[in-house]
Amino acid sequence: MKVERDLHMSHGDGETSYATNSRLQEKSILKTRPVLHKAVEAAHASLTPAGTMVVADLGCSSGPNTLLVVSEVLGAIADCREELRGQQEPVHVQFFLNDLPGNDFNLLFRSLELFKNLTANEKGEAVPPYYIAGLPGSFYNRLFPDRCVHIFHSSYCLMWRSKVPEELSRGTVENEGNMYIWETTPPSVVKLHREQFQEDFSLFLRLRHNELVSSGQMVLTFLGRKNKDVLRGEISYLLGLLAQAVQSLVQAGRVEKGKLDSFNLPLYAPSVDEVREVIQQSELFDINHIQLFELNWDPHDDSDGDLVLDSVQSGVNAARCIRAVVEPLIAHHFGGHILDDLFEMYAQNVAKHLQKVKTKYPVIVLSLKARRAPKHPANHSCYS
Amino acid sequence: MKVERDLHMSHGDGETSYATNSRLQEKSILKTRPVLHKAVEAAHASLTPAGTMVVADLGCSSGPNTLLVVSEVLGAIADCREELRGQQEPVHVQFFLNDLPGNDFNLLFRSLELFKNLTANEKGEAVPPYYIAGLPGSFYNRLFPDRCVHIFHSSYCLMWRSKVPEELSRGTVENEGNMYIWETTPPSVVKLHREQFQEDFSLFLRLRHNELVSSGQMVLTFLGRKNKDVLRGEISYLLGLLAQAVQSLVQAGRVEKGKLDSFNLPLYAPSVDEVREVIQQSELFDINHIQLFELNWDPHDDSDGDLVLDSVQSGVNAARCIRAVVEPLIAHHFGGHILDDLFEMYAQNVAKHLQKVKTKYPVIVLSLKARRAPKHPANHSCYS
Repeated sequence: MKVERDLHMSHGDGETSYATNSRLQEKSILKTRPVLHKAVEAAHASLTPAGTMVVADLGCSSGPNTLLVVSEVLGAIADCREELRGQQEPVHVQFFLNDLPGNDFNLLFRSLELFKNLTANEKGEAVPPYYIAGLPGSFYNRLFPDRCVHIFHSSYCLMWRSKVPEELSRGTVENEGNMYIWETTPPSVVKLHREQFQEDFSLFLRLRHNELVSSGQMVLTFLGRKNKDVLRGEISYLLGLLAQAVQSLVQAGRVEKGKLDSFNLPLYAPSVDEVREVIQQSELFDINHIQLFELNWDPHDDSDGDLVLDSVQSGVNAARCIRAVVEPLIAHHFGGHILDDLFEMYAQNVAKHLQKVKTKYPVIVLSLKARRAPKHPANHSCYS
Repeated sequence: MKVERDLHMSHGDGETSYATNSRLQEKSILKTRPVLHKAVEAAHASLTPAGTMVVADLGCSSGPNTLLVVSEVLGAIADCREELRGQQEPVHVQFFLNDLPGNDFNLLFRSLELFKNLTANEKGEAVPPYYIAGLPGSFYNRLFPDRCVHIFHSSYCLMWRSKVPEELSRGTVENEGNMYIWETTPPSVVKLHREQFQEDFSLFLRLRHNELVSSGQMVLTFLGRKNKDVLRGEISYLLGLLAQAVQSLVQAGRVEKGKLDSFNLPLYAPSVDEVREVIQQSELFDINHIQLFELNWDPHDDSDGDLVLDSVQSGVNAARCIRAVVEPLIAHHFGGHILDDLFEMYAQNVAKHLQKVKTKYPVIVLSLKARRAPKHPANHSCYS
């Protein structure tokens, strides 16, 4: 598996596409709204009138959520202007929507005109002038020149690793019968996943720090782990149930056992402590805010509490949500022919699990501010 | 017809795609190389060490030529550095590849990794750090914040208009039997096309002037007209022969006459004098360089002189080149079912014409430098 080539949300806007099945991610964006608005406010305060604010969304995907982020940022800036009672020339906003090259940028770009018309009609003059570019590439590489970006935003991406740990992808060690960390995973495999997270996240912080202006802001939301026991994380349950569905196909002779044993998701869902540790070791960012909140596995279940009303329907809904995200990786490794049966069994597995216990997604939201030891004269700007 | 939605080169990389049939445009890029290199040199000289040069290619399409432009600019910057004997930190280069939202950006983005590997292997350390973004939108709108861009480049795009003149698209006036200006075109229609050019080009200059840094550079290459008589321009011949092919389909009862009469290409190929006049009236740019050169209709015919060796093959080649460009517009208006027959007849018409006279493409290349009446303090930069 080559993550940069193979990892992308399901294309298009059909029934099983990511665009149609991204309510979970939408709920997170709405939930983290106040954190994003605060970051925008801080960035806005540091700009000169009529200056340009550069905002990058890392792992933007292509669907309604991509433009929801743009809309939230524009709304936050309009609020800042309102407080100034329009006494200043508006800032211009330059958005960079980043994702891996396999993302469906065509779909995204063709939806921009409609978005622009809607925004203009709804918000009118309050909307600052803005420009939207697409930026293909992995956020585990440099994406921008030095000191150009005011705000990085990323939602539901930083649990993805830059690669499957090498010993696992070479097959030197194996995570038999699993596709992610699970109760039967050997400690050596857990260690590899955790080290890959530490390496990736620390690299991510260094890269973004170079690209941010002084006091630049980052708002990062990603799947984490609430359970202290790494073998029993909430995402481990969710993906363990998917591995069980593949195991059923192995037993039915439709998938080779070796195929499952050699499939490893490039993923790690860290605890808040693990995240905090990497940030503090980097010495590059101050933590404005760090928090873990929970969302139901079924993105259409908006209820609080620990009761699942319709576990069958919730199983179907949760399975659709996961399918929209992992289908391209599954299809690439196992072949597209198993998809419908696999995800039907998966929905049943999830339903059975939810009958016993209403496990939830733990989501970490993080707001960081770049520390700066001035390397250049204070008035240095990247575009001069 | 809605130009922003319907105008794009033929997608993909198949036999009739633009990516496979863009040798004409490639020849132009190579021909105008010295002009582009000079502009890059001038922009480079105005940058501080370790600064960022922003380069935008307007109407980039998706194919080998898109990345040829990127490669040329990187090469020119490497040359500048060589002259400085590497005594300065390299500039960073941020490319924006712009085209209408219908362009195949997915194809383009997926070719970037290969390009980056090739460039790194071929040119090694001489290549400055660079970043590539895609920018969907019409260049008859604002694309960037104020004063951000150092170089605009555009090849084979500025003969396209922002729209078909309204009287023509409403049908108040008609250009019967034609799709572009031709011998039988009434003076009122010529006037509409010419005014649309003047309006569009003057708007383009104003927009880009706002987006360019002080002394920013533009290198623009587009189809023009050598013949003084606007009814007998070289592009008029080429498209007149295509209209003749549609007329044959009308006579065969396969296309309604009204369909042809209501089809107007959003195009105007101006003379050098017409171009110069708009630039001078704008008072926004100094002309570094303006020149008209000629390329054979058959992009695979590299011979000079007025003799066509194999007019049948040249007809086929010239028709393929035009098909890759106008097919989406033709298919949208007339339906995809006529395409193969239409372009086969067209190839025959071109062949017959070339037997009589070797008409060529007149190509205008233009290098402009932004004049600046300082509105802001001298040290103003858009990203502060």
